[in-house]
Amino acid sequence: MEFYQKEITLPALSRGFHLITPQIVSQFPEIGRIQSGFIQVFIKHTSASLCINENADPTVRQDFESHFNKMVPENMSYYKHNYEGSDDMPAHIKAALLGCQLLIPLTAGRLSLGTWQGIYLCEHRDHGGPRRLVCTAFGSTG
Amino acid sequence: MEFYQKEITLPALSRGFHLITPQIVSQFPEIGRIQSGFIQVFIKHTSASLCINENADPTVRQDFESHFNKMVPENMSYYKHNYEGSDDMPAHIKAALLGCQLLIPLTAGRLSLGTWQGIYLCEHRDHGGPRRLVCTAFGSTG
Amino acid sequence: MEFYQKEITLPALSRGFHLITPQIVSQFPEIGRIQSGFIQVFIKHTSASLCINENADPTVRQDFESHFNKMVPENMSYYKHNYEGSDDMPAHIKAALLGCQLLIPLTAGRLSLGTWQGIYLCEHRDHGGPRRLVCTAFGSTG
Repeated sequence: MEFYQKEITLPALSRGFHLITPQIVSQFPEIGRIQSGFIQVFIKHTSASLCINENADPTVRQDFESHFNKMVPENMSYYKHNYEGSDDMPAHIKAALLGCQLLIPLTAGRLSLGTWQGIYLCEHRDHGGPRRLVCTAFGSTG
Repeated sequence: MEFYQKEITLPALSRGFHLITPQIVSQFPEIGRIQSGFIQVFIKHTSASLCINENADPTVRQDFESHFNKMVPENMSYYKHNYEGSDDMPAHIKAALLGCQLLIPLTAGRLSLGTWQGIYLCEHRDHGGPRRLVCTAFGSTG
Repeated sequence: MEFYQKEITLPALSRGFHLITPQIVSQFPEIGRIQSGFIQVFIKHTSASLCINENADPTVRQDFESHFNKMVPENMSYYKHNYEGSDDMPAHIKAALLGCQLLIPLTAGRLSLGTWQGIYLCEHRDHGGPRRLVCTAFGSTG
């Protein structure tokens, strides 16, 4: 049973949904040592989020941005937390809907994702800045 | 500390929300060996999802389907990813909202769910086909 | 590798979003023994949920309640599960959207949360009563 934990920082990304599977895998070669286990990715922010979805067609990620903007609009009259910009409170709600954590099975040293699954960093602010992630891999090495 | 991992395939289910707790438990007798730990269920798809909710009244699962169809409608004018059918892009969004992974505590060899909690397979496509799940149980056996 | 599991009960909270990080940490001193690992918090209910979001400004939590009430309204004509009160079916849907489980990294005996992150208990019923949580901490102690 091994435990590997590290914090990584992703440079600022534009508002929207971004595929980050390669960045996670390349920064965490210890994954290769785990026969059966998990990697967790945890984002230490409340206005950006993580999810797993389609990894091939970029229009899927554009449609995510469009739909989340409709489902969680800016400038709703009932928002009280509005002094940090019109994108701020919707970003908190979007982040809660998608979540801040992913736990992905590892099998024979590789992420056990489906063919079409990729990891998204969902940036809900107009100018969110760099985002910090805690990555933890654990499992059996035998 | 033990780690058990296996992939199981569920036969095609109709569009909607389905209770699958019995299928998970019956296919994973190794759960019984774990004193304190977890089982993770991970679905390797981007247009079906997993969640935990009410396990008794089937109308709850019908209302889930009705509400998700309203919250994430088909044929929105802003969808660009629309060449795989009108159910495709909404399926991706619904899957991201509910998530692809459940981590359930195990206590004394059993799922530590509440009385009314059951595992749902949420099929968001009209014809999604069989769905593959990675199930991993781990924890202390002593 | 250590595993600590316990069930805790939170007293009844009013409908809305509540910060419960102090209650979790204070009831689980075993966290301090874990060098690198996780704590999972799992709620054994289907009409209350858990999420991680902004921990400083109480208006964020009020806006969450307002927005979830708009996104998942009561008394929709298509609800069939309506005999337990108008807040019942929306509570199930809200709970599924936010989820019943959080897995938080532990580093050097402490929750590895971002500066602005706190744990929310999201009570979606008008009179939900006490809520039971299973808390499990595990990881390396060396």
